[in-house]
Amino acid sequence: MKKKWSKTEQNESKTMSYVAINSVLVAVNLTLSGQPTKGGVNISRTKPVWGKNKPHRNIPIPILLKTMADPKIEAELAPLRASVKEQGDKVRALKAEGAPELDVKKAVAELKTRKKILEERELKLAPSVSSFDRAKMEDLLKRRFFYDQSFSIYGGISGQYDFGPMGCALKTNMLTAWRQFFVLEEQMLEVDCSILTLEPVLKASGHVDRFADLMVKDLKTGECFRLDHLIKAHLEKLSSDPKTPQNVKEECEDIVIKLDGMNKAEMDAVLKKYEIKSPLTKNELSEPIEFNLMFATQIGPSGLIKGYLRPETAQGIFVNFKRLLEFNSGKLPFAAAQIGNAFRNEISPRSGLIRVREFTMAEIEHFCDPSDKSHPKFDNVESTQMLLYSACNQMDGKSAERLTIGEAVRSKLVDNETLGYFMARIQKFLVSVGIDPEKLRFRQHMGNEMAHYACDCWDAECLTSYGWVECVGCADRSAYDLTQHFKATGVRLAAEKHLPEPVTKDVVEPVANKGIIGKEFKKDAKAICYRLAALDLNDIHALEESFNQTEKYNLSVDSKDFVLTKDMVSIKRSTKTVHVEEIIPSVIEPSFGIGRIMYSLFEQNFKMREGDEQRTYLALPPLVAPLKSSILPLSSNPEFQPFIKTLSAELSQNGISYKVDDSAGSIGKRYARTDEIAIPFGITIDFDTLKEPHSVTLRERDTMTQVRINVNEVVAVIKDLSSAKITWADVQSKYPKFEAQEGGK
Amino acid sequence: MKKKWSKTEQNESKTMSYVAINSVLVAVNLTLSGQPTKGGVNISRTKPVWGKNKPHRNIPIPILLKTMADPKIEAELAPLRASVKEQGDKVRALKAEGAPELDVKKAVAELKTRKKILEERELKLAPSVSSFDRAKMEDLLKRRFFYDQSFSIYGGISGQYDFGPMGCALKTNMLTAWRQFFVLEEQMLEVDCSILTLEPVLKASGHVDRFADLMVKDLKTGECFRLDHLIKAHLEKLSSDPKTPQNVKEECEDIVIKLDGMNKAEMDAVLKKYEIKSPLTKNELSEPIEFNLMFATQIGPSGLIKGYLRPETAQGIFVNFKRLLEFNSGKLPFAAAQIGNAFRNEISPRSGLIRVREFTMAEIEHFCDPSDKSHPKFDNVESTQMLLYSACNQMDGKSAERLTIGEAVRSKLVDNETLGYFMARIQKFLVSVGIDPEKLRFRQHMGNEMAHYACDCWDAECLTSYGWVECVGCADRSAYDLTQHFKATGVRLAAEKHLPEPVTKDVVEPVANKGIIGKEFKKDAKAICYRLAALDLNDIHALEESFNQTEKYNLSVDSKDFVLTKDMVSIKRSTKTVHVEEIIPSVIEPSFGIGRIMYSLFEQNFKMREGDEQRTYLALPPLVAPLKSSILPLSSNPEFQPFIKTLSAELSQNGISYKVDDSAGSIGKRYARTDEIAIPFGITIDFDTLKEPHSVTLRERDTMTQVRINVNEVVAVIKDLSSAKITWADVQSKYPKFEAQEGGK
Repeated sequence: MKKKWSKTEQNESKTMSYVAINSVLVAVNLTLSGQPTKGGVNISRTKPVWGKNKPHRNIPIPILLKTMADPKIEAELAPLRASVKEQGDKVRALKAEGAPELDVKKAVAELKTRKKILEERELKLAPSVSSFDRAKMEDLLKRRFFYDQSFSIYGGISGQYDFGPMGCALKTNMLTAWRQFFVLEEQMLEVDCSILTLEPVLKASGHVDRFADLMVKDLKTGECFRLDHLIKAHLEKLSSDPKTPQNVKEECEDIVIKLDGMNKAEMDAVLKKYEIKSPLTKNELSEPIEFNLMFATQIGPSGLIKGYLRPETAQGIFVNFKRLLEFNSGKLPFAAAQIGNAFRNEISPRSGLIRVREFTMAEIEHFCDPSDKSHPKFDNVESTQMLLYSACNQMDGKSAERLTIGEAVRSKLVDNETLGYFMARIQKFLVSVGIDPEKLRFRQHMGNEMAHYACDCWDAECLTSYGWVECVGCADRSAYDLTQHFKATGVRLAAEKHLPEPVTKDVVEPVANKGIIGKEFKKDAKAICYRLAALDLNDIHALEESFNQTEKYNLSVDSKDFVLTKDMVSIKRSTKTVHVEEIIPSVIEPSFGIGRIMYSLFEQNFKMREGDEQRTYLALPPLVAPLKSSILPLSSNPEFQPFIKTLSAELSQNGISYKVDDSAGSIGKRYARTDEIAIPFGITIDFDTLKEPHSVTLRERDTMTQVRINVNEVVAVIKDLSSAKITWADVQSKYPKFEAQEGGK
Repeated sequence: MKKKWSKTEQNESKTMSYVAINSVLVAVNLTLSGQPTKGGVNISRTKPVWGKNKPHRNIPIPILLKTMADPKIEAELAPLRASVKEQGDKVRALKAEGAPELDVKKAVAELKTRKKILEERELKLAPSVSSFDRAKMEDLLKRRFFYDQSFSIYGGISGQYDFGPMGCALKTNMLTAWRQFFVLEEQMLEVDCSILTLEPVLKASGHVDRFADLMVKDLKTGECFRLDHLIKAHLEKLSSDPKTPQNVKEECEDIVIKLDGMNKAEMDAVLKKYEIKSPLTKNELSEPIEFNLMFATQIGPSGLIKGYLRPETAQGIFVNFKRLLEFNSGKLPFAAAQIGNAFRNEISPRSGLIRVREFTMAEIEHFCDPSDKSHPKFDNVESTQMLLYSACNQMDGKSAERLTIGEAVRSKLVDNETLGYFMARIQKFLVSVGIDPEKLRFRQHMGNEMAHYACDCWDAECLTSYGWVECVGCADRSAYDLTQHFKATGVRLAAEKHLPEPVTKDVVEPVANKGIIGKEFKKDAKAICYRLAALDLNDIHALEESFNQTEKYNLSVDSKDFVLTKDMVSIKRSTKTVHVEEIIPSVIEPSFGIGRIMYSLFEQNFKMREGDEQRTYLALPPLVAPLKSSILPLSSNPEFQPFIKTLSAELSQNGISYKVDDSAGSIGKRYARTDEIAIPFGITIDFDTLKEPHSVTLRERDTMTQVRINVNEVVAVIKDLSSAKITWADVQSKYPKFEAQEGGK
């Protein structure tokens, strides 16, 4: 999530995918710039994605911690671990000796392949407790309209989904929980900024120039293919052909391994060498094209103001930094948060909710003093146990390790307290909404994956049938973004830090002669003056030197060069007594992909009743379950009506969502129906309800147990259960058990 | 809000604006297709809008009900009312005799002008209780970052705003209240659909062809001007020039009056006759151009799939109708709801939050049987008093009238119970979030304003310094939308209604010969077959007749004509016994403009302390106030710290938002600061807090009164106050009064 725009830079991290083995285990490490690949030709454009991937039935869900404990399994993994370590050491050595970038990249690509093989084997060897049937889950989600493809009556489009009543309610509940957990509890400043973004903003952030994937076009039909996917599919097909000679096979496999580390020219060479054509039409293909993943549009009628749909919500916070700092009375640290939609024009989106063109993010930008990244509440989380997969362990072929965040920060594995604090909070939040702590890990970015401005970066990854899916990024972005916007606008996005005592300082400032610059450079003059104001001390020295030697200075603004003459800039030197120091804050950014978390929740909470595979349900926690309760009259007896009405009104008043199911069908069938949409608590009105004192039964979804409870008390009990004030066990110990028939399938 | 796309059709309703009189009263009736005009040249493109309209200081806020009661005022208004009625009768007569459309349009334009004069005088004569200073309010909203222009460090852009922490919290609270009030209490199906919308969807809805405004371009600079604004500004300037001859002045005034009713050719003629040039450069202007107000983009890399940012959220619900109906077990009526962003590329947006390019809507589509629009809960709202401004009263020069919604529905003034039920609920919601019931009316659309498919339509309008602003539309859209999407896709968007007893029916169906059609029409074949399937009985008869006479039939699909021959279609006749009847549901649509409601809330709740104009505050109800409480330690005494910490934690746990203000400055100054951001309840920790039993003071914002209360009780009290379980009067009667100093300005 944090590798915001550094797409082309970080090609090497793109598809850490595990090739399917016997169509059973598909473990893919998805990053925002990667696509899961499962072998075969992956090139579909606007076809519906539902019902794809049908072969993946009964995928074993591994328990990772057990893997690590079992010596037999460890013995089997040992050679693979050694192979990773060998390559990891090689990468380290290359870096240490300052080897050429390409050599390092290739070594890293090989390292990743070895990691991939290790991790895949690890997942495969892990003993599985239950099996997962993706097709069955997708059927449930579609049938009960949790979500489905957008505009499908018009043929639909890939990468866009509509959330139906149940998906929408789950999402709303999750976001409400997020606001309570982060915005309220951490006193963050929540903002809601424009989606349509002016081009210069995204130019400064780097998105206009670098937020791109490589593709090729069918020269006759115009059909586009993502280049890395295309090459991979072609070579894998070739390599699996029995007629292909062994040496070609080996070469193909070698290229596939190195693909992630290849640049445009290298991929182009592969394209030419293997004479790759369009897999659909066999037509000739274009040269590789860098395709920017932002949706472009024009703002206003003139067609002159270019805008993009934001590819992340973060930039809206950065451009409001000054207002937010002022709102916080000029004090650091503070955090701003934003929940909203972002857009990426993926070349060929697949994998359901995991890779989409339109998605909801929840982002936090915590601004702090770069010299002090301690956190006042770190003590509260210090003892949190976390599964951490460090960069070092990744290079050494070791597994993720469980340790406390306190230990991780103390040993400097996690760079600082604030980063560690957020990692612990992220974990707590994810678990509270229903992520299985056994299927959650934090993976550190290796040096080559990290954006060049980031100091440290950890991804919260959830285990699904697609493998480990990156759901939340947590990065220390340093002062990068604020600096970029400062350079582009000349507006100082800095905070003032009071010095313990006043300091006398020599100040050197370039003073632009705006008249002359304006006359000479016309519309570029403003940008030149901004750039001049942003020069640092080294730049100023270089400028002075250049003026002294050549009477000229080459100033580069937005990759355009301007030749300044001596009369355009003077250097002002003065002494100032300063009480404050100006600092550009560091930014720690937790960034949540809401759709990915939702998808992980669906998978991890999808269950089948023991002994009845057809009876599936979603065991979502009451906190986020779309509806908290059901009201089920045992029959259509009109005497039940007043109870339905009273209970409905009381639930509404208490803000508890509910559904009345008074349709025909056995009570067992109706329980099954409410289980499917994850309703945790069911009120049944039966004939005993009519007797005084009026009572109902209350049923809990996961255990299917019931208690008998007074009709006047039941709403309060559900309220307390839904807000986790009490547990089902508490209820069971307080109220008499009711023995019920769950049949009626 | 409901005149969704029928822009060009309904030009006559565009700018019911009241020209400013002495810069004091600006009353403009804003509809979504209109722009407030205040005379003068209104052509700005990307300039910031803050700080504009500065002249409107101390605008008197009229009390409308009093106006209507005062016989003196009524005497003064009588001739104006008569003048409106005279014209209203003329319009009726023209319509009755079937006069040409243009004559009717012109008569309606004249009617509106007379209404405008009447309404303006009404507002002016109304006694005002307080005055309103817009500049002061805007200063507060900007200074405390409720909202501000987007990207202003990059020069900004008009029509786009970022909500800061206070605006965002207000918005979130309002939307949460909306969900509780509508989705939960009315058991609606909330959905969350894609923003990026495929072109065919918006082609079917009519937006691609008709969602446009007229504009002209400066032929040299490319600068664009909204045509009606440009003409108006030019003619008003000309007419106010003392050198202009009297007859020209009169002609100008006449044109300005009729402008709203003019079509493209008529406006073009005016442009040519007065030789209107660009007001900025005096360059020549282009012919009038229809500018579609949707933002266009391409989905996917090929550039072949055209998409738009949705101009309303409603279409997402319509295209999901089948899934939603199924979710509701196939039963009518049901309502779906959606909260989300929509986008309109306004030519030159102004008026702050009222006319923007990116905005949040909350829309409800209630689907019901067209032959039964009764509502089971209508009894609950029947006695609700409402201020209704009927189409008839508008034409008769009468005022809005106060009557119950029960009376209105019984007398058929409001078309049906469901429409009436929603109008009453809309009013209740608006009042609960802080709209002054005295500044809220429901205005019925006159025949000429209504979209052609609508049966009845009422706008909830809030009175602001811009005049009556349409904030919520409530329209009966009949079966229009579902029918359009059915025609475009061939997917029957219908529900089944069980007949009381089976009926034997003659069925006539066109059967397409897909082979021949496919061969002949290739890629258009699918659309042709869809269109054939959607033919109604009349169409089928016409087709048969045409085949019999000419062997051919002209089928129009998407405004393209196809000639079908006899071999392509056969007519199947059969008899069927049917138990169900297929009906295309009617849609009743309440559509909320969230930004407009927020703006009205700001204006209507902006207050000044008596005797101190500088001390302004926002009297927002606790339900929606951005923060519910403040914690104010009297001084920086470290002994206060533990109390701050405990109270903060307790407030957080209870989900009550709060702000600690421990900054320097007198307590009075800090109260004033929290009043500005509408915090309703303030906890002050003072030296008595340190004594046992520990107590604090609790202050209410609007009355500035305080009570002394035990520190253990205060959070529960604030919780009950915030959810309106108890009132401040209850608190005052229970706890001892605390006499405090409010000074320290």
